[in-house]
Amino acid sequence: MENENYQQLTRTFLRLSRFSHLSAIAGWDMFAMMPPGGSAARGEALAELGVLQHQILTDKKVAQWLTAAQQEDLNDDEQANLREMARAHHQAALLPESLVEAKSLAGSRCEHAWRTQRPGNDWQGFSTNLKEVVRLSREEARIRAEAKGVSRYDALLDIFEPDMTSARLDVLFADLKSWLPDLLAQAVEKQSRQTLIAPQGPFPTEKQRESGLEVMRMLGFNFDHGRLDVSAHPFCGGVPDDVRITTRYNENELLSALFGVIHETGHARYEQNLPRQWPGQPIALARSTAIHESQSLFFEMQLGRSKAFLQHLLPIVIENFGIQPAFELDNFTAWNQRVKPGFIRVDADEVSYPAHVILRYDIERALIDGDIEVDDIPALWDEKMQAWLGLSTKGNYRDGCMQDIHWTDGGFGYFPSYTLGAMYAAQLFNAARSALPGLDESITRGDLNPLFGWLQQNIWQHGSRLSTTQLIQQATGEDLNSRYFRQHLTARYL
Amino acid sequence: MENENYQQLTRTFLRLSRFSHLSAIAGWDMFAMMPPGGSAARGEALAELGVLQHQILTDKKVAQWLTAAQQEDLNDDEQANLREMARAHHQAALLPESLVEAKSLAGSRCEHAWRTQRPGNDWQGFSTNLKEVVRLSREEARIRAEAKGVSRYDALLDIFEPDMTSARLDVLFADLKSWLPDLLAQAVEKQSRQTLIAPQGPFPTEKQRESGLEVMRMLGFNFDHGRLDVSAHPFCGGVPDDVRITTRYNENELLSALFGVIHETGHARYEQNLPRQWPGQPIALARSTAIHESQSLFFEMQLGRSKAFLQHLLPIVIENFGIQPAFELDNFTAWNQRVKPGFIRVDADEVSYPAHVILRYDIERALIDGDIEVDDIPALWDEKMQAWLGLSTKGNYRDGCMQDIHWTDGGFGYFPSYTLGAMYAAQLFNAARSALPGLDESITRGDLNPLFGWLQQNIWQHGSRLSTTQLIQQATGEDLNSRYFRQHLTARYL
Repeated sequence: MENENYQQLTRTFLRLSRFSHLSAIAGWDMFAMMPPGGSAARGEALAELGVLQHQILTDKKVAQWLTAAQQEDLNDDEQANLREMARAHHQAALLPESLVEAKSLAGSRCEHAWRTQRPGNDWQGFSTNLKEVVRLSREEARIRAEAKGVSRYDALLDIFEPDMTSARLDVLFADLKSWLPDLLAQAVEKQSRQTLIAPQGPFPTEKQRESGLEVMRMLGFNFDHGRLDVSAHPFCGGVPDDVRITTRYNENELLSALFGVIHETGHARYEQNLPRQWPGQPIALARSTAIHESQSLFFEMQLGRSKAFLQHLLPIVIENFGIQPAFELDNFTAWNQRVKPGFIRVDADEVSYPAHVILRYDIERALIDGDIEVDDIPALWDEKMQAWLGLSTKGNYRDGCMQDIHWTDGGFGYFPSYTLGAMYAAQLFNAARSALPGLDESITRGDLNPLFGWLQQNIWQHGSRLSTTQLIQQATGEDLNSRYFRQHLTARYL
Repeated sequence: MENENYQQLTRTFLRLSRFSHLSAIAGWDMFAMMPPGGSAARGEALAELGVLQHQILTDKKVAQWLTAAQQEDLNDDEQANLREMARAHHQAALLPESLVEAKSLAGSRCEHAWRTQRPGNDWQGFSTNLKEVVRLSREEARIRAEAKGVSRYDALLDIFEPDMTSARLDVLFADLKSWLPDLLAQAVEKQSRQTLIAPQGPFPTEKQRESGLEVMRMLGFNFDHGRLDVSAHPFCGGVPDDVRITTRYNENELLSALFGVIHETGHARYEQNLPRQWPGQPIALARSTAIHESQSLFFEMQLGRSKAFLQHLLPIVIENFGIQPAFELDNFTAWNQRVKPGFIRVDADEVSYPAHVILRYDIERALIDGDIEVDDIPALWDEKMQAWLGLSTKGNYRDGCMQDIHWTDGGFGYFPSYTLGAMYAAQLFNAARSALPGLDESITRGDLNPLFGWLQQNIWQHGSRLSTTQLIQQATGEDLNSRYFRQHLTARYL
């Protein structure tokens, strides 16, 4: 048979994708639907499936096919797919099965306990579980680092961002550090002279949900292939044919859930528009977490909080909650562009957001590289929050180092994606604007199709066909840099 | 190691139970949550998992362990578990993997299309898919029948009801046929002299849901280990640690959803109270589909529609929908005990229900044994509905042979469980009443604990430790028979 080894690989990865489907749906259910008593059995079931997927992916036949397929006559897409297959295999083959299972179980346990420990501000209880997660993540990092000849943290970073290193992150973040604190201070100072009218609640959950669904429709979410639900920590899950996004409602607060929905819809549209011509193949998956975050931040920040878009969001808000002074366009726009340093990353404005990310990056990198221990986290957190945003989290673990879900299941190396995503988003929006001269006018008219068409053309349809570097070069004509992010923040906030 | 082969088996079945967990949750999701566009990918994912489970269960090592474990020193429970393991293995080992996969895919396809074909009354479209399902089920029946030396239909019946044969069903059903039509006619005639006040809607969905949740609490459903949702065809799914029941709401009709919830809560309490000391083992599973239906009908019919219980249900109804003349206790009781032959099985009263079941049993048996074809079903359905209930379903496939989900995925052999369950339920209630002299008074007082304690003691805690015959003999002192069902119907309706 022609390309026999490659064909064997595509069959194996199709099979794996079906197991990933079940894992994605059971994972979504765990966060969005599952009653608390279902947790232990679910954790065990997912760990069992994880072990199976690991076995299939690391089977020595896969290694043989990968080697043999290098000699086969493959077109460019097939070669790209082979590259992604090899990457997935090698990433997995480094880890012993026992570590995969132990990580999955420790992660489920820590995440599940965190759901009640966080509201209870129970750092003691949480840190006990977290230490086990950190121990296993360090073990993973050690194994990966030795195999690749990179630092331990870089070995984990590579899982999420193939082209990224901490050396490169340090350069990008040092650049941000050189101008962002000043820009933040100026923006805060400038806004201190504004008098804004706050939206008055309550905002009934059902109406918030309806607004969210309406804005999803406006943003092109395909409800034939996805749904909106509720979870404690909003996310985008499921599979490309069935994308599950979540949000959370607070009846006293209107915009948090609504912009959460806009953010997750950005993720969802990327997933729903990934290429379909390679079912179950790695080439058809999203490129990386930072590119994923670039899409959600493109929707939430670049598009979502622009006045041009807000004037089309406003009628949805008014339709659901009635007219009130806060819903006058200029006030509504200014309200959605407030810069207000706060404790919570997911509620942060885009100017102070990088502080939250760089703080976590510094801590998780030191933690994985063994320079600090779990017990050191709260003091470091407090020190860095004071330095960046002038806020104290002493004794307030709930709104400090316990606020995020990522570390609970060992997701070290993910946080930088958010700020990389913000930079990518600004760079992409700038490129779209250059490519489409009437873009701002079309958004002002409420026609989002040119913008989405550009994303489809330049990002979504490519899946993992190109490397991140190629993708961004092809879309924007240059490498990732912070220039457009700075331009965007300056234009919007100063 | 002691009992090494048995230990290998318990590990294998624990692993299988974890995959069944994922299959159960993804299956629940498919009916209760999944958007239509997710169907194809889900069907493939579930089929892939089904093939894997089949491979694990039929692995030749399992056969060797089963043989060797027979010689090991096992206690009674372990022997019972081994018996159930062997049964599961032999049932699965008969079928080639390709047939397992083809059945799963054809079933998903037929079920999914049925969701729109049924409302569209599209028998042509439906029968095309059904023919493929029937073809594969006949193939399965042929293989099983040859291996066991029984008839083809009996070979499928055995999957659901281990101790049951069509010869025994024929005796039980012939007995029913000898007195039920007359009892039905008398009940209808007697009720024709009643003047009843119908509940007046609309009954808002949210209020119906709240009533359902309240009645679930009253019936002891453990919400830490389960949930209530909505699906087109109500069912009880999930896993014992996380039981998912569903219902469907019609704003013009109050009691259908509410009694659906009571029915599914009976299934759920059985699942939630299965033994926990054998995690993942077949001995810890529910005994059979008929015993499962006995629990749901025990809740819905024996308990749920009794005046003693209805007087405690009524305050929940009034609290949610206000007072109206129909909610006077005697009227409400009579309304819930109406005998009214109709088209739809799941809405049938308990007197006409067996007609729906025996009709389906006659048809599916002939279909599997090859005496009729799919194209013959509508005419036969019409003929039997005319004979039993005096109703014509000519051209009305939607409310006739297309109303049920069971055949869509090849569940031939399931329907008899409903009427067996009704007979078991009556026999069990009679036994509980004999064992607990103050039972009726305690129910009248609203104290359901003695009744649930008796079920826990006699049914729930046993899982599959005993055979169905042993279970029912131990609980009631005799074999299954229709005497108590007849007594119950006579006492309530004549």
